[in-house]
Amino acid sequence: LYNDTVMDHFMNPRNVGEIEDADGTGVYGSPVCGDMMQVQIKVKDDIITDAKFKTFGCGSAIASSSMATTMIIGKSVEDALEVSNKKIIDELGGLPAVKVHCSVLADHAIKSAIYDYAQKN
Amino acid sequence: LYNDTVMDHFMNPRNVGEIEDADGTGVYGSPVCGDMMQVQIKVKDDIITDAKFKTFGCGSAIASSSMATTMIIGKSVEDALEVSNKKIIDELGGLPAVKVHCSVLADHAIKSAIYDYAQKN
Ligand code: FES
Repeated sequence: LYNDTVMDHFMNPRNVGEIEDADGTGVYGSPVCGDMMQVQIKVKDDIITDAKFKTFGCGSAIASSSMATTMIIGKSVEDALEVSNKKIIDELGGLPAVKVHCSVLADHAIKSAIYDYAQKN
Repeated sequence: LYNDTVMDHFMNPRNVGEIEDADGTGVYGSPVCGDMMQVQIKVKDDIITDAKFKTFGCGSAIASSSMATTMIIGKSVEDALEVSNKKIIDELGGLPAVKVHCSVLADHAIKSAIYDYAQKN
């Protein structure tokens, strides 16, 4: 059902946790399954220097946010906004169709964290 | 959002894994979120002596199946059938309403494992 990349990011998720002095925090709740995702970012000179996520969501949500946070770290805020749901899934090598809604959590929580950062600056 | 009992069963789930020589195996897929749950049981003299679960599902699915497997071990097959979704949630001290659908996975997979056992015996 799940490929090796998805399993790796599920079993050894990257960037799990919280950032004490985050520059932006985003929370998104899925209307499909009721799961929530929090993403926090640290920004310096318009570059995302760190990102962490926290969720009680499923394996696909964990793998997606692990991959997604990896993808935005080192990018400018503007480039990070280009990291779409589709790009996250592509980078994971695909997700079962019924689980695509879980990757939306990562995507939306990141955009919400960036929005929070933008509002504060 | 989640009480201490739910968090405990999510962080330290009981009875995760597979039983090599299981007497009954049940798999159930949720129409809500697309997650799957496998429950396996070992039965001796009509008593469930062991139960294990495997899922890629969310924290609520993990906590529910951890609690549910704990509840059926030591029970007769007939008594185990009485372990309803509602009883699992009560024993967990409650779940957020949006996450009740996750506890259904444990309930259905257990009943399916018992059905599998019954068919073989
Ligand atoms: S089912 Fe809720 S995040 Fe995957």
